[in-house]
Amino acid sequence: MSEQLHWDALWTNVHLATMSDGYGEIRDAAIAVKDGRIAWLGKHSDLPAHRADAVHDGQGGWITPGLIDCHTHIVYGGSRADEFEARLNGASYEDIARRGGGIVSTVHATRAASEDELYAASLRRVAALLAEGVTTLEIKSGYGLDLESERKMLRVARRIGRELPVRVMTTFLGAHALPPEYAGRADDYIDFVCEVMMPSLAEEGLVDAVDAFCEKIGFTAAQTERVFEHAASLELPVKLHAEQLSDQGGAALTAKYRGLSADHLEHLSEAGIAAMRAAGTVAVLLPGAFYFLRETKLPPVQALRAAGVPIAISTDCNPGTSPMTSLLLAMNMCCTLFRMTPLEALAGVTSHAARALGIAAETGLLAVGRRADMALWDVASPGELAYAIGGRPCRSVVTAGKARRVDLL
Amino acid sequence: MSEQLHWDALWTNVHLATMSDGYGEIRDAAIAVKDGRIAWLGKHSDLPAHRADAVHDGQGGWITPGLIDCHTHIVYGGSRADEFEARLNGASYEDIARRGGGIVSTVHATRAASEDELYAASLRRVAALLAEGVTTLEIKSGYGLDLESERKMLRVARRIGRELPVRVMTTFLGAHALPPEYAGRADDYIDFVCEVMMPSLAEEGLVDAVDAFCEKIGFTAAQTERVFEHAASLELPVKLHAEQLSDQGGAALTAKYRGLSADHLEHLSEAGIAAMRAAGTVAVLLPGAFYFLRETKLPPVQALRAAGVPIAISTDCNPGTSPMTSLLLAMNMCCTLFRMTPLEALAGVTSHAARALGIAAETGLLAVGRRADMALWDVASPGELAYAIGGRPCRSVVTAGKARRVDLL
Ligand SMILES: [Zn+2]
Ligand SMILES: [Zn+2]
Repeated sequence: MSEQLHWDALWTNVHLATMSDGYGEIRDAAIAVKDGRIAWLGKHSDLPAHRADAVHDGQGGWITPGLIDCHTHIVYGGSRADEFEARLNGASYEDIARRGGGIVSTVHATRAASEDELYAASLRRVAALLAEGVTTLEIKSGYGLDLESERKMLRVARRIGRELPVRVMTTFLGAHALPPEYAGRADDYIDFVCEVMMPSLAEEGLVDAVDAFCEKIGFTAAQTERVFEHAASLELPVKLHAEQLSDQGGAALTAKYRGLSADHLEHLSEAGIAAMRAAGTVAVLLPGAFYFLRETKLPPVQALRAAGVPIAISTDCNPGTSPMTSLLLAMNMCCTLFRMTPLEALAGVTSHAARALGIAAETGLLAVGRRADMALWDVASPGELAYAIGGRPCRSVVTAGKARRVDLL
Repeated sequence: MSEQLHWDALWTNVHLATMSDGYGEIRDAAIAVKDGRIAWLGKHSDLPAHRADAVHDGQGGWITPGLIDCHTHIVYGGSRADEFEARLNGASYEDIARRGGGIVSTVHATRAASEDELYAASLRRVAALLAEGVTTLEIKSGYGLDLESERKMLRVARRIGRELPVRVMTTFLGAHALPPEYAGRADDYIDFVCEVMMPSLAEEGLVDAVDAFCEKIGFTAAQTERVFEHAASLELPVKLHAEQLSDQGGAALTAKYRGLSADHLEHLSEAGIAAMRAAGTVAVLLPGAFYFLRETKLPPVQALRAAGVPIAISTDCNPGTSPMTSLLLAMNMCCTLFRMTPLEALAGVTSHAARALGIAAETGLLAVGRRADMALWDVASPGELAYAIGGRPCRSVVTAGKARRVDLL
């Protein structure tokens, strides 16, 4: 028996959506894990001789790659629930600005919070994602807007990745908004972002990628390009909040710097699509913000699809425009509101989301050698994941080979 | 010490949203339960001398009345996920009808399922609601459309109420759709609904209320009135699927029969509102269907509010037009899409939903003597419940005094 394979764990009585070539369905399957990686997968009837330290009965459910939320601002202090309520009770944007609301209130609360407080506040939101099969999470800074506070946010993001069963990819978003102390001096702030914050935080190992908010109410394309140039000089990959409210040419700019992704994209042009396609830049759609802001201009899904640009989907979890912590709901919104297919939605939170984070070689698919990041679902077909609204179909999650159950009752 | 109060359980370190007069907030409060009812509530500093068999630390969270989902079709067989997927892959309604899709497919699957199978299928959906603080649930028949199958659905509904920690109110919705075997003979089917099914099922104790679908694609106002007359003769309260796709005068008809509620109401007229107001009929809004069908005609929230008609909110959980099992998300949709306030949203799933089910004397508020149906939330304010999208803020639920925890990680 010395030839026998020896696995850490084996799942049987499952169907697989490997996400290689469409759903990549394998019915009546089994999948094995060794040293945190997928060691074998295939038809149950093809299982080779093996020993497995643990055998899990999947009870006829479906296993998909673990979900990947590739665009979040999930670490922040304070709450904007009061602002939401005030608006619906008739307060104008001016009223709210006068009482210190808007993004400035989140910046103040984030600056004021201790690292432990910020961690505890974020944990509740992250936990909701983890209960839904998320195994990889991108987290942006951008509510600190000074060196200490941006560092604090990124350290909390790293701590989430250390203490919870989720891989965290950090993004430095110093160019998110102009902090009050730089009012009227946006170029000076961009200098500070590029010359002080970015190199320090990168030096400390806190930055996996660099992002900016390129918009009339954010930073100009020229300011964004300065950020990208500095990121390139530090060999940090870039991505961008682009074409959300207007077409600023942000997607093409991102493509010029071989960016990982351009995100939002409601106002994306044909030229932007062509540039993204040529550069291999992923389109990240954020339907939570579209829904919450009651937007009507749809992102150009059909044109992206026709061009072969990979489309990822994310919650955009943030307190001001998308207080959302359900990636399954984002999938449903992409189908219901943007008319994507359930297959596109699932690829959008697995294989395409992995590409948007530059980690497609490691995760996002079920394949031998990949990280064993998987979710087991109580559904009759993988398409059901995008169909159900507010459902809780996840039964267990495996992160780098470690399994945990999700109990519903 | 013989004068000392003796409670089964006491919650301290909580804030209360009693929902009496607005939120009815009591901060730094305590609430006690005895024999399944609320025995005391108030400021913690006013706690009288007492013994409590169990003391729960609310950890600074908020307690609200248990949530009430007052309009669901949550018991059904089969799935329509395949139909959703086919539509998004380009199939027309005709294609889907040709392959036996639409409500007919749910009727076939429901008829074919055993009582145990139907219970198991429904359980997964009900569990998602229970994890979100729901303590009362209305469940309609209407996918059986023959005596045996309608009975089976209602028996499953009763079993859910018996076996799970939730109170179930059943509704006989025989007049939901025309079964295939009655094609072209709608009046004959209404005879069968009124003269055979309704009295038999009522006799068996399976019917708490009677409902119908009054619409161009459903039953006429005259047919609906026949259903209501028979319900009245059996002393069963009525409610109606009214004015969803067109104005059929259904709300006024419901009011004429002192109906509990008229539901959907996107096309409700001023006359309908006036009639509902005079009769005390509750307006039940169902934003999941509005969202899923991408409707644009909004229900007349401002006019209902001005008239003082109580507004309840429900998931409308059903496989064809609202596959939704999150009442918190329905609250957010009512705020985001219909511009209701967070307070209105919370009243819509507590006190007003209790009125819509005719059980306002028993539940829906936190008050001494009411059933101890409560939910404990990890939120900083009750308004946060409607603000967060896809969040999982519920930490424990108390149904008729019995507590259970909801664990997130
Ligand atoms: Zn963002
Ligand atoms: Zn309904």
